[in-house]
This record gives sequence, C-alpha cells and structure tokens, in this order.
Amino acid sequence: MSDLQQRIDFIVEADKLKSVYRRGLIKSDNNRRENTAEHSWHVALMALVFKDYASENVDISKVVEMLLIHDMVEIYAGDTYAFADQATLAQQNSKELQALEKVFALLPENDANKMKNLWLEFEKNESPEAKFAKALEKSIPVYQNMVNEGGSWAQNNTSSEQVLKRNEMLKDIAPKLWDYVVGQVQIAVDEGWLKAGN
Amino acid sequence: MSDLQQRIDFIVEADKLKSVYRRGLIKSDNNRRENTAEHSWHVALMALVFKDYASENVDISKVVEMLLIHDMVEIYAGDTYAFADQATLAQQNSKELQALEKVFALLPENDANKMKNLWLEFEKNESPEAKFAKALEKSIPVYQNMVNEGGSWAQNNTSSEQVLKRNEMLKDIAPKLWDYVVGQVQIAVDEGWLKAGN
Repeated sequence: MSDLQQRIDFIVEADKLKSVYRRGLIKSDNNRRENTAEHSWHVALMALVFKDYASENVDISKVVEMLLIHDMVEIYAGDTYAFADQATLAQQNSKELQALEKVFALLPENDANKMKNLWLEFEKNESPEAKFAKALEKSIPVYQNMVNEGGSWAQNNTSSEQVLKRNEMLKDIAPKLWDYVVGQVQIAVDEGWLKAGN
Repeated sequence: MSDLQQRIDFIVEADKLKSVYRRGLIKSDNNRRENTAEHSWHVALMALVFKDYASENVDISKVVEMLLIHDMVEIYAGDTYAFADQATLAQQNSKELQALEKVFALLPENDANKMKNLWLEFEKNESPEAKFAKALEKSIPVYQNMVNEGGSWAQNNTSSEQVLKRNEMLKDIAPKLWDYVVGQVQIAVDEGWLKAGN
C-alpha cells in the first residue's frame, strides 16, 4: 500500500473518534454528551490561548500536537470517566496501550513511531509540554461545568476534593490557572454543584 | 475583567462550535451530521499527517493554528454548504466578517488581533500556509464520502465537476493529493455516488 493511502486510511479511521462519547455535556447543544474529537479540538485551542500561562518554557506547537492525538486510543479503548475507581482506571490503561499499537500502525512506520512516542510522552507526564498539555486537558471540564450548573459533576455526584486533586498539577505548571480553578471549585460548592469534601 | 477571565470566556464561547452542524455525515455514528468543532480537529490532524505533501515550504504549526480557528466565525454565522449558489456564499462571507469582529473580541486585544489576522490570512488564500490549510480543508469530505457510499454528495446531488473544481487548488499546493482526489472522483462517478459532469 502507498504511503499516501496509509495516511488516508488513518484519517478515515480517525473519523471514529467522533463517536466516542465522554461524560461532559455540551450546554449549547441540549446538553448532549461531548465526543472525544471535539474535546481534542477544544483543548488544543485552549493551549493556543493559554500558552503564556505555562511556568516553564514550552514548545507550544508540540503541546498542540500532543493534544490533537492524546485521545486517539479511545477509538478502540473507549472513554472512562475521570473519577472512576482505581481498578477501572488501571484496566483502561491496559486497553489504551493495546489500542496505541493498533491505531498508529495505520501510518507509515516513521510517522507511526513519532506519534506513538508523542502519545507516550504525554502519558508519562514529565516533559514541560506533557505537563502543560495534561493540566489543560484536566482543567477544561471545570470551565464547561461552571457555566452549566455543575454539568457532569452534578450528574455524577462529584466532590470538590476529587476536582481539586485532579487539577493539582496546575499548581506548578500554570499557577494562575490553579488559583482560578480553586476559586471556581469554591463557588461550585457554594452553589451545590459539587459535594463539599471527599 | 482580567486577561485570564477573558481567555476563559473565549474558551467557554468556543464550546458553541460543537453545535454548528455541517452537511458531512459521520459514518461511525449512525450518519449523524458532523459539527464544526470535530471537523476542525480532524483537518488539523490531517495537516500533521500530510505535512510533507506540501509543494512549498510551510510552517506546519501555523497551518495547524489556522485550521483550529478557521471556522470560529461559524458560532455566529453558521455553516453554509460548500456547493451553495453564489448569492448564498456571498451573503455567508459578509456574515462571517461580522462574526469575526465579535468572536475574537472576547480575547485580550493583542491575541484578538493575532487570531483575526490568522483567520484573514487563511481566507485570503495567498500564503503557502493558507493555501495548504485551505486545500486540506476542502479535500477532507472526499475521504469521508468515499467510505460512505457518497455520503453528503449523494444526499445533495453533487456533481463530479463541482468536487473537482472545489479541490483544484490541490493541484499546485499538494499535487500527489490532487492526483488521488481525481482518481477517487472517477470511482465515485462509476459507483453512482457523484453525478457525472456539471
């Protein structure tokens, strides 16, 4: 098969990410659930808009690339709720590693390896780019839920501690956003959109 | 209002792009219509995968940025079918220019100007980045429709000449993709998914 055909096949396969649904709700679209493709767009856009908020030097185009592909594995592994129990999250991780081999193998080998490594770097969460990308990705439901009377938090009986713990990495990599999130969580508790405590 | 709050407001407003529906159909999701947010993700991903197919030197991170924001105006202007009549397309253009002022004005002034200029550069279609971004954006429905028995073409009684004309700019900026598209259009005509001729 030609390199070009391999790339087309990958792009066609990628279309399937539009049918993987998350817990997040789209307020402007009758509160339907958000899919992973549009979520990936949204958080990549967020990286562009918040690039100056990273506390370390980040290569923002690398952050954007990471975010564009960070959930490609969900085509085969599906989405798991951020606040699922530990056993579920561990099982999800193993499914994602299998999916990783499958999805990028559609591309010519060089590109497949590059994308796989980028995905692994994101998951490893050690480079400044990975930390910034992951912190943004974890925080975006906060802004969505805050304009939607708690949105997916309220639906899933989520607690303030869960949200703060999940967003904790913002503290180092984007401290101003961390302060903002802490303030929003307090408002959400006051409004009854988040359970106080654990 | 703080810069940070302005950026958050922009990200929250951007959520609305997920409820702007195009003519394209998502095969993996019961042929529901595609929305503009997930389309923007898909074509930005395509830029990463096809970056070496550009005939001119392109700054690929600029192409990706362009594609992430190229349809932001649709939040207020809506989507118009690619093969609408000239009067409808002209009217759409004027609505988009109004929307352009509105959507990026949510951001701090410097960023607003940068994004507006990037959008205008894309529309102007003169720089290598704009030409490559636009050519990819026009071609992506081809790959989607070819695995979906004609998809939105078949539904809208589209002709082979319309598709070739729309994709013509690939000829110079990504000649290998142009050859591929020409081949696919012929197959689509043979299969009865595209009307032959005008």
